Amino acid sequence: MSPDVLEILQTGTKGYQLIFPQKPAASVLAKADRDAQFVTVDVAFGQPDPQAIAEARQLKWIHVSSSGIARYDTREFRALMARRKIVLSNSASVYNEACAVHALSFMLAQARKLPRALKTRTAGGTTDWHAVRSACRTLRGETVLIVGYGAIGKRLAELLRPFDMKVIAYRRKARGDESVPILTANQLAHALANEVDHVVDILPQSAETRHFFDAARFASIKRGAIFYNIGRGTTVDQEALLEALRCGRIAAAWLDVTEPEPLPDSHPLLSQPNCFITPHVAGGHADETQTLVRHFLKNLERFVRGETLLDRVM
Amino acid sequence: MSPDVLEILQTGTKGYQLIFPQKPAASVLAKADRDAQFVTVDVAFGQPDPQAIAEARQLKWIHVSSSGIARYDTREFRALMARRKIVLSNSASVYNEACAVHALSFMLAQARKLPRALKTRTAGGTTDWHAVRSACRTLRGETVLIVGYGAIGKRLAELLRPFDMKVIAYRRKARGDESVPILTANQLAHALANEVDHVVDILPQSAETRHFFDAARFASIKRGAIFYNIGRGTTVDQEALLEALRCGRIAAAWLDVTEPEPLPDSHPLLSQPNCFITPHVAGGHADETQTLVRHFLKNLERFVRGETLLDRVM
Repeated sequence: MSPDVLEILQTGTKGYQLIFPQKPAASVLAKADRDAQFVTVDVAFGQPDPQAIAEARQLKWIHVSSSGIARYDTREFRALMARRKIVLSNSASVYNEACAVHALSFMLAQARKLPRALKTRTAGGTTDWHAVRSACRTLRGETVLIVGYGAIGKRLAELLRPFDMKVIAYRRKARGDESVPILTANQLAHALANEVDHVVDILPQSAETRHFFDAARFASIKRGAIFYNIGRGTTVDQEALLEALRCGRIAAAWLDVTEPEPLPDSHPLLSQPNCFITPHVAGGHADETQTLVRHFLKNLERFVRGETLLDRVM
Repeated sequence: MSPDVLEILQTGTKGYQLIFPQKPAASVLAKADRDAQFVTVDVAFGQPDPQAIAEARQLKWIHVSSSGIARYDTREFRALMARRKIVLSNSASVYNEACAVHALSFMLAQARKLPRALKTRTAGGTTDWHAVRSACRTLRGETVLIVGYGAIGKRLAELLRPFDMKVIAYRRKARGDESVPILTANQLAHALANEVDHVVDILPQSAETRHFFDAARFASIKRGAIFYNIGRGTTVDQEALLEALRCGRIAAAWLDVTEPEPLPDSHPLLSQPNCFITPHVAGGHADETQTLVRHFLKNLERFVRGETLLDRVM
């Protein structure tokens, strides 16, 4: 945390005691060390260890500093939260915009064949030139399926609205207030096989979503579709994806997440020419930590006034 | 022209005599050979030589197979068209969508730092990772200036509408029906110096637009702005652009057009790390020739019925 962001945090929490962990975690995905003072806090902001939470008797509210809540998304943990009346909110609002824009940047880089076009220097009319030019797409009339339709998917659908595309989505439980058609499991199978040109995976990590895209699912997808993952690496069987990319069933894959991250040197997806990987930066944006802290402070005001929290997930 | 597209053309022109040039031109930008039969035609579809047009006494309508009309955009030629009552239409509608999508693909690839991110394989929390992640942008709150606001610019503004950006534009003559604010020359200078984060050059080639972006103009642009060119290479003084990229006044340039095309091996823009070049493919899309032929045939029907032509420019 830079000095100016720290100052925003300190100013915004004036009147409360602000406690920092003795040893900060390497990243939001790493397991944090247990901290002796954690048992004394009323509010936790970050990625506290679920075990430590069980022992922190004062705890009333946890504000998770990421969109993903995989380490808290278990039946046991949800039961603990309910029993202890602890509320849990996440930082989805901080990352939605960047993640949706990142997904669209993938779709457009693919449509305009940027990785290839940026490497091609040739005169108009040559075979190379015709090959790149005629491989380009406008996206007009194509179909996008968003799998895991939450706040990021909703924003992506908004960004896609001017494109004259068909946008459909799939989510665990349709709420009925979605801005795009939500498919049932049967409709999903039919759309994958017959209709989709772009499959955008925004699934969160959980036991249920593990290898949601497995060999059978990839084999069922319309030949030539493009696959994007800005959800979690665990939702994809990477062996199956590799095979789908090799045989051309999936024409290209754009992944911001993999399992593990980063992939080891020898991993075949790294040398697969139609696979493009960014290092889990979809949520990133300038002033990210500041946005994160401001979002927490907005929620702190709501918490103090007893109002409904933003991005409450438990 | 592939056999199926040729068939579309032949079917659509049934009842008329269809004459092909003896030797087709290498590309729409190359000068075509003079063809003996050209003097006999009523309608020309392609890139006929302005000299040949002067001699073709039967000619009533020219449908240019590109968006750019640089070789026809002179005072003498316009006078000839007016005197001979020849109408001239272009294929702007065929390329608008692809060009606007290409421009947006540049903006998003820059915002999400794709060229760098696709080459970075690193774990979350490392210095490299933080560097890429914090360099990413969402575009929210930023300002785009479209220079040369025609059909492509209008479509780009539509695609940008969901982005929470400010979109402003400049064109030779404001018509008053534009969907975004059109700046005067004074307002342009002020916006460039104080406001713009993204400058999108969509200027056509003409004597007037030659080096519109010269050293003085680049030196006046707000430090750190991004420059995009999907218009014509001649509108940019490339020496001046190079200097602006070297000193960081322009943080990055994305060019689909250069002068000449392609740039020679030794050209310094090719090795400038913040300069990204695609080989004049912005208008490209699958089935481009078919779209081109269908657009011509739509106009042929209008021509026969004496209706106003689509994309009429003279």
